[in-house]
Amino acid sequence: MTVNVGVIGAGMIGADHIRRLTTVVSGARVRAVTDIDAGRAAAVAGSVGARALPGDAEVIGAGDVDAVLVASWGAAHAESVLAAIEAGKPVFCEKPLATTAEDCLRIADAEQRHGARLVQVGFMRRYDPGYREMKRIIDAGDIGTPLMVHCAHRNATVPESYHSAMAAHDTAIHEIDVVRWLLSDEIVSAQVLTPRRTAHRFEHLQDPQIMLFETADGARVDVEVFVNCRYGYDIQCEAVGETGTVRLPDPAAPAVRTAGRSATSVLQDWKDRFAEAYDVEIQEWVDSVAAGAPAGPSAWDGYAAAMISDATVEALHSGRIVGTGIKARPDFYA
Amino acid sequence: MTVNVGVIGAGMIGADHIRRLTTVVSGARVRAVTDIDAGRAAAVAGSVGARALPGDAEVIGAGDVDAVLVASWGAAHAESVLAAIEAGKPVFCEKPLATTAEDCLRIADAEQRHGARLVQVGFMRRYDPGYREMKRIIDAGDIGTPLMVHCAHRNATVPESYHSAMAAHDTAIHEIDVVRWLLSDEIVSAQVLTPRRTAHRFEHLQDPQIMLFETADGARVDVEVFVNCRYGYDIQCEAVGETGTVRLPDPAAPAVRTAGRSATSVLQDWKDRFAEAYDVEIQEWVDSVAAGAPAGPSAWDGYAAAMISDATVEALHSGRIVGTGIKARPDFYA
Amino acid sequence: MTVNVGVIGAGMIGADHIRRLTTVVSGARVRAVTDIDAGRAAAVAGSVGARALPGDAEVIGAGDVDAVLVASWGAAHAESVLAAIEAGKPVFCEKPLATTAEDCLRIADAEQRHGARLVQVGFMRRYDPGYREMKRIIDAGDIGTPLMVHCAHRNATVPESYHSAMAAHDTAIHEIDVVRWLLSDEIVSAQVLTPRRTAHRFEHLQDPQIMLFETADGARVDVEVFVNCRYGYDIQCEAVGETGTVRLPDPAAPAVRTAGRSATSVLQDWKDRFAEAYDVEIQEWVDSVAAGAPAGPSAWDGYAAAMISDATVEALHSGRIVGTGIKARPDFYA
Amino acid sequence: MTVNVGVIGAGMIGADHIRRLTTVVSGARVRAVTDIDAGRAAAVAGSVGARALPGDAEVIGAGDVDAVLVASWGAAHAESVLAAIEAGKPVFCEKPLATTAEDCLRIADAEQRHGARLVQVGFMRRYDPGYREMKRIIDAGDIGTPLMVHCAHRNATVPESYHSAMAAHDTAIHEIDVVRWLLSDEIVSAQVLTPRRTAHRFEHLQDPQIMLFETADGARVDVEVFVNCRYGYDIQCEAVGETGTVRLPDPAAPAVRTAGRSATSVLQDWKDRFAEAYDVEIQEWVDSVAAGAPAGPSAWDGYAAAMISDATVEALHSGRIVGTGIKARPDFYA
Repeated sequence: MTVNVGVIGAGMIGADHIRRLTTVVSGARVRAVTDIDAGRAAAVAGSVGARALPGDAEVIGAGDVDAVLVASWGAAHAESVLAAIEAGKPVFCEKPLATTAEDCLRIADAEQRHGARLVQVGFMRRYDPGYREMKRIIDAGDIGTPLMVHCAHRNATVPESYHSAMAAHDTAIHEIDVVRWLLSDEIVSAQVLTPRRTAHRFEHLQDPQIMLFETADGARVDVEVFVNCRYGYDIQCEAVGETGTVRLPDPAAPAVRTAGRSATSVLQDWKDRFAEAYDVEIQEWVDSVAAGAPAGPSAWDGYAAAMISDATVEALHSGRIVGTGIKARPDFYA
Repeated sequence: MTVNVGVIGAGMIGADHIRRLTTVVSGARVRAVTDIDAGRAAAVAGSVGARALPGDAEVIGAGDVDAVLVASWGAAHAESVLAAIEAGKPVFCEKPLATTAEDCLRIADAEQRHGARLVQVGFMRRYDPGYREMKRIIDAGDIGTPLMVHCAHRNATVPESYHSAMAAHDTAIHEIDVVRWLLSDEIVSAQVLTPRRTAHRFEHLQDPQIMLFETADGARVDVEVFVNCRYGYDIQCEAVGETGTVRLPDPAAPAVRTAGRSATSVLQDWKDRFAEAYDVEIQEWVDSVAAGAPAGPSAWDGYAAAMISDATVEALHSGRIVGTGIKARPDFYA
Repeated sequence: MTVNVGVIGAGMIGADHIRRLTTVVSGARVRAVTDIDAGRAAAVAGSVGARALPGDAEVIGAGDVDAVLVASWGAAHAESVLAAIEAGKPVFCEKPLATTAEDCLRIADAEQRHGARLVQVGFMRRYDPGYREMKRIIDAGDIGTPLMVHCAHRNATVPESYHSAMAAHDTAIHEIDVVRWLLSDEIVSAQVLTPRRTAHRFEHLQDPQIMLFETADGARVDVEVFVNCRYGYDIQCEAVGETGTVRLPDPAAPAVRTAGRSATSVLQDWKDRFAEAYDVEIQEWVDSVAAGAPAGPSAWDGYAAAMISDATVEALHSGRIVGTGIKARPDFYA
Repeated sequence: MTVNVGVIGAGMIGADHIRRLTTVVSGARVRAVTDIDAGRAAAVAGSVGARALPGDAEVIGAGDVDAVLVASWGAAHAESVLAAIEAGKPVFCEKPLATTAEDCLRIADAEQRHGARLVQVGFMRRYDPGYREMKRIIDAGDIGTPLMVHCAHRNATVPESYHSAMAAHDTAIHEIDVVRWLLSDEIVSAQVLTPRRTAHRFEHLQDPQIMLFETADGARVDVEVFVNCRYGYDIQCEAVGETGTVRLPDPAAPAVRTAGRSATSVLQDWKDRFAEAYDVEIQEWVDSVAAGAPAGPSAWDGYAAAMISDATVEALHSGRIVGTGIKARPDFYA
């Protein structure tokens, strides 16, 4: 069975997902595309034999669209997702699920009223082989009960439009989700330390930041976010348990010995780092939709990540420890 | 455009390629399957919506079959590939291309008479990301002119049917191909050293073996083949050039520290080690067929590998250095 | 020239230093030993051809003692060191220099009145080849201005007498000193996070702890102290600068591949981890004494470490961020 | 007890051993020094409070010389060692023990007539912590019966005086000794492969060379010798046994991430690589002499290494497999 997909948003991420659905993933076909830039929608749709449509309603309502993929501007996500739920169609939404936690909650409420899972959020790290093997090891009890997680999220550089709150909302949100998932635990408070700023940044930006989280079970998580580290894109994660530790591997790369150095390349682009994760994520989404319902990160995960990143930004601005105030998780999302 | 594929041979490898063409690769569809076991053909074909056909002729001749994938018993490869060439259809043939070098040459001759490339041989290591990056580094001149390559090919264990000649024909043949490709060079002689045999083997088997090759440009290659190494499936490769070295990375795996040890897992199965390489190989084959003609390992590469592995077996049995006697490469395969 | 040493304290550490001065270090000879247990002093002294003396005064005052090494119970350090200064003799004092910051300051004041350096404190990590190479790299500007340091200090287990304040006073004190030295910077505040406690501890102990420090220049330092980590003695340190990072290497150990694992040993004992550092430390101390005056960690470093570990313990108990209140450094110690 | 040492040869190696005996090793004192350059002998002797003597006889015969260290030109070794045996004094001889196997045998014969061990040969790798741990692992049976050893010995560059035979006599001799010791086995034949020569060498030199050895128990050893590898001094060794492998670790070095690379330094100088091994070697020699007799590499090891390197050079020149022809080992050396 082929899953026919309608795509909302044909920018860089949307176009990449359309390419992936067409040339990497099996069992899916892109049928319709919309974008606020109609010309871009037409160009991208044309390249894969799909048709461009004027707006969300037309894509979601199209008779040959089985499932919807939302990759538009973040502020538009919530309305597209709610419309897809209204139409009873499965919807994959790139992170963030919505730009406010309230909207995330509206989505979760709508989905619960629908009575079955329709929504999957684009937290692709859960599909990275390294993180998956870490989770298998943790779940197997190989390191005992987890007590601490140490993370670093480093980008070589960011554009001037990147501002301090994005360190939580756009960058650390990946660690927030993946740590919740690795530990099967919820984050209850956030604190932010502000080291001396690197000189290699725009004036308005606090970079780096060190985010400190506490979980419901008392584990402690520290996340270094450093988005102008210059040397590359580098993701580190080590979980420390009662009897051992496990560390996310660096990407495999040949070691070259020349001129007094043994060196491996560090990736420069996050798209290279998680290319396989994106492929697996979308393949599994397509497979799960074909099988009945999405099984990946849920609307509740999107809501929790929004609450935690909001608390983190408040902690950054206030200098205080801020509770995340996440509601009790409904059984629907257990 | 979808490439419609007919598959000859539905055993373990064939069934795996059918799964890959159906659920991993995009742009391909399996239409027809044959196998000497008609029941197996029917079962596998049915699982992917294809039809089972009685023999090679029917698969190759089917009007809705654009290209052929041969994954039958090695002794049957040559006739299937020659028939596909006769029909003017692109054909992917699992290694070996044929069980004799003469048959490989017959295939290359037929292909040249056809006037354009039709044949690709299943040397999947050329699609492994680690080997590809090694080749990029070597071709970029980062280690200078290559002088030596050190390889190890270790399997945890082999079945009793595995015999000493298979160390070259079935095992080292992958190193033989990948080294020719890494160095853009030809192998001109072979010698085999026979270390003390491991006790963990069947009586008839010389295991391990150390194969020594010389190339036309004077590089030296050593390949340890050890197919009962017990601890796992482990592939090592280091190229040494005039100004540096490059080493194939081990697969990325989380490091776990427990009980006085820091450890990573070693894979047990070659299918896990080269899973990504197989996926890329078949995707690129499908893409190249859709674009006109296969671009991967050629019939000539299949012929050369056969000549080299034959010489290696002769070297094993005679204890002497044996020339490979590969003919001059036709411009067709330049 | 041979430096004749008198040793105060012949317990485990003292006896080890006596062995080191006798059989590892060149240019030194142990002449006199004292201990609160006279029998132990006699036994240890006899084994190296030295004489046992009844107390500090006799050792420090002995005509054939050029320099003093203090390795007694921490509470006794201050009086021994002050007496050595009074006698104008160089004195190496195991950490802590004194059990109160006030006593450290008394020592620094006495040394300044003496007018030249006499005191060296036993912060041996500054002599570890890995840390030294890290400092060389940082000082060379290879990673740019340091912004953050991430540390972990893990012991397999501790005895029941170990209590929560010792995590700062006895364990993290090594990180406190080595980070001050790596960064050429001072620590101005401390905070302590208390993760869920491991089940593998005595009831009274908060283990692990995460200590957070800020330096005068605004760098941030986090130190995980986990003294019942079960798997071994493991010291981690990564400095992150404006243009790169540098990480302390693990001890070199052969990698063994067996039974599906590639593994290296993790050391169990801190004495093995820093054995070379101890040897270099004492050799350089002897050499510097022979050359005129000690050049290693000073009484001021001992005072600063005491102030910082006191602030850390207060932070642990109060849950607040606590300023270290270190006085301005006299030019004498620049 | 102090071992009073007389040193024959005050060139680079001799002067380094004199420094080591004086400032690193404990329990030894250099009393007398001789050199063919009397001025050099005087200068070096003077720097450590020893006296310069006119020749071997005076040094060996001096009443205050307990043991002799020979670090002169290789061609002079045999006579010095024989004279020390004649005088009944323990003698440490830098490699080679003698420049001909016959002379090595004369030494072994003289030592046996003396009736107890006096001679130790300077094969310092047996004292390197990495090799020692490898031997411990092999001897413990952790990798099963050893079947193969893969080695590489790479120097950044060599002077013009270095010629092809030195690859065996001066360079691979270290691997020859250490492999015999690691395997507790004897080498019975040698073969040499000659890869294409690097352009970065003097015209007369075959560089690199691949040496192939077989042991009495049937293990196979390959040693890449590449003395103009440009990038650094790099020693690799991997032993492969029936159930696993063990690999010599690279020297521990901080990893630096900058500018798209994660890199560690490669040492440039063999003296840095084996500095600790030299220190341990001489300390243990001094300790063993003080305890009665040397326990390190014996005259027989020196003889075997000479026979094997001679066979290797013959194999290089003849292109054939050459038997080493080592005599049966006397019980004296068991």
